[in-house]
Amino acid sequence: MQEILETPALLLDEARLQRNVERMRVRMDRLGVAFRPHVKTSKCLEVVRRQMAAGARGITVSTLKEAEEFFRAGIDDILYAVGIVPNKLHHALRLIREGCRLTLLLESVVMAEQVARHGAEHGVCYEVMIEIDTDGHRSGVKPDDPVLLDIAAALQGGARLKGVMTHAGASYDCNTPEALAAMAEQERSRCVAAATLLRNGGHACPVVSVGSTPTALSASHLEGVTEVRAGVYVFFDMVMADVGVCTTDDIAISVLCTVIGHQADQGWVITDGGWMAMSRDLGHDHHGYGMVCDSDGQPVPELGFGKANQEHGVLQWRGDAGVDLTQRFPVGGSLRILPNHACATAAQHGQYHVIPQNGGDWPVWPRFNGW
Amino acid sequence: MQEILETPALLLDEARLQRNVERMRVRMDRLGVAFRPHVKTSKCLEVVRRQMAAGARGITVSTLKEAEEFFRAGIDDILYAVGIVPNKLHHALRLIREGCRLTLLLESVVMAEQVARHGAEHGVCYEVMIEIDTDGHRSGVKPDDPVLLDIAAALQGGARLKGVMTHAGASYDCNTPEALAAMAEQERSRCVAAATLLRNGGHACPVVSVGSTPTALSASHLEGVTEVRAGVYVFFDMVMADVGVCTTDDIAISVLCTVIGHQADQGWVITDGGWMAMSRDLGHDHHGYGMVCDSDGQPVPELGFGKANQEHGVLQWRGDAGVDLTQRFPVGGSLRILPNHACATAAQHGQYHVIPQNGGDWPVWPRFNGW
Repeated sequence: MQEILETPALLLDEARLQRNVERMRVRMDRLGVAFRPHVKTSKCLEVVRRQMAAGARGITVSTLKEAEEFFRAGIDDILYAVGIVPNKLHHALRLIREGCRLTLLLESVVMAEQVARHGAEHGVCYEVMIEIDTDGHRSGVKPDDPVLLDIAAALQGGARLKGVMTHAGASYDCNTPEALAAMAEQERSRCVAAATLLRNGGHACPVVSVGSTPTALSASHLEGVTEVRAGVYVFFDMVMADVGVCTTDDIAISVLCTVIGHQADQGWVITDGGWMAMSRDLGHDHHGYGMVCDSDGQPVPELGFGKANQEHGVLQWRGDAGVDLTQRFPVGGSLRILPNHACATAAQHGQYHVIPQNGGDWPVWPRFNGW
Repeated sequence: MQEILETPALLLDEARLQRNVERMRVRMDRLGVAFRPHVKTSKCLEVVRRQMAAGARGITVSTLKEAEEFFRAGIDDILYAVGIVPNKLHHALRLIREGCRLTLLLESVVMAEQVARHGAEHGVCYEVMIEIDTDGHRSGVKPDDPVLLDIAAALQGGARLKGVMTHAGASYDCNTPEALAAMAEQERSRCVAAATLLRNGGHACPVVSVGSTPTALSASHLEGVTEVRAGVYVFFDMVMADVGVCTTDDIAISVLCTVIGHQADQGWVITDGGWMAMSRDLGHDHHGYGMVCDSDGQPVPELGFGKANQEHGVLQWRGDAGVDLTQRFPVGGSLRILPNHACATAAQHGQYHVIPQNGGDWPVWPRFNGW
């Protein structure tokens, strides 16, 4: 099947996908928490169905487009994990009226008031989580900030406080088991502290939601946490390999490309897999635009991927100077590139070409993009 | 209209678009060459129609998907400007059989032989250009390399040499009028030299095709050149502003986003326009993920865009420390971001929301992505 694929094409190794899904299921069962996968990585119903079959309770989304698509496919328990803004409330309202159990996120009194007012005006009660900042990397209220109580107080009438949520994105910069375990504990303890502050203030706060792939795979216990979220674990990528929570053998997606030509004097092999196929994500800047592999997916570390144009990859030979690149990597030959960041690379494509677990034809699984 | 757009959304200023199209038309008329716009920037029929109306003769594409889409829309003179590989020949053949005047590109004897054989086997004669490397930045044969004659000799039977083509991508790293003019002259003279070598060897080489936006806008004359190609000029972007061939007032696309929240202690304004909306393209690394502007499109240089997550932009205030960011950039307020690289940013979106020249409702112009 691979021979007649037009390149570049996004490949998905189904056996690795299943192994990654199962690994997280086992881990969450041991930790005794519910799991709500973040579907922003795959944006693909076939992938998410496998996560649901492994016991996921609801999903996390990064856009209302994801909420819309997965709700239409029958998944109705959805956390929209980006701070809500006024221009999206009508879309949220429409989904809720159609039966979607959509939970919104916010981090300010002003949005809490607007959401509550919008709900009251339109006869719905929005379920709302407050975003907690447990690592200083992005959004959210500090866990000991008394404004939490003001936000909770504003959530009345057309809105109801469901819980607190955090994402320790700083875990992506860890790279030892000790640092990861410490970050997981920081994420847990600070999010639980925020819930405690709210409860002590008289607010019900049933849900405590934490997660990132590195912390989900590194936490030693999750006392006080009710659910974990993670996204990229489903495919893994070179950044996760750098962090140390997977190996290159776990990475389930790769970009198939074809050698167009060479610049022998520069040691270059030029392919039709450029930044449009890989994204511009350089990860931790250790692997250029991705890890070059042969057509079977075995890494070829002597071939760096330091340069890319829109539809051209420029691979740079760092191995034995005596190698004839035109023979070793002939025009028309295939290479596969492991992505730095699975979410970013997959988003450059409209479908996955699936290498099936049990052989046979390669199915095509569609994915969607946009908002 | 802008108020009810869900964000992030890609805006296109029609007046600027028309001005950019007209500027190139005037320039090409003065230089006395045909113009073949590269449609990889917009991938949008409405945009390309305006380029054709301004006298473009055919188009340049970076994927066979672009060739397919624009051929279906009635444009049949198409140069596919990425080196052809065997897995794409059947797609090219199908387009040609349906009446598309598709020209292929290659740079090796081995592909010349394969293309000629494929054409002969299937009863077509492929029109082929040879890629010339005039600046050492990517693909192509050096203009004085005698292998050019071997490639031309291999193009017989099912293939015919149409000409030579080059793209001086190194022009993106120039930033003075003198350097740009010198690069344009280098691109021209070396591509003409390759054509001369071929003609002296007895091969007809009617087409000499050069171009990039910076060189197209900087060449003082184009003797020996028959056509110019350029893509990004249609929208322009911050990289082109850095190169010096446009100002921020010429940039026709921007990403509309909404303020989600703040981290006052860090001087951060957080928006719903992250790298998914902007792409990960950092351009020349001068403007973070793009130039922040107010809702009318006026730059706010005190607000840097140094950090982005998938659906979060983290804008960093560099101005007066006394400013209350929650008042100056309130939650729910709009900002617009000028892209570093128009091709990369536009590719993250499925449509353009067009700010019309003459007022009225904002039309939506679809674009496509993928291969």
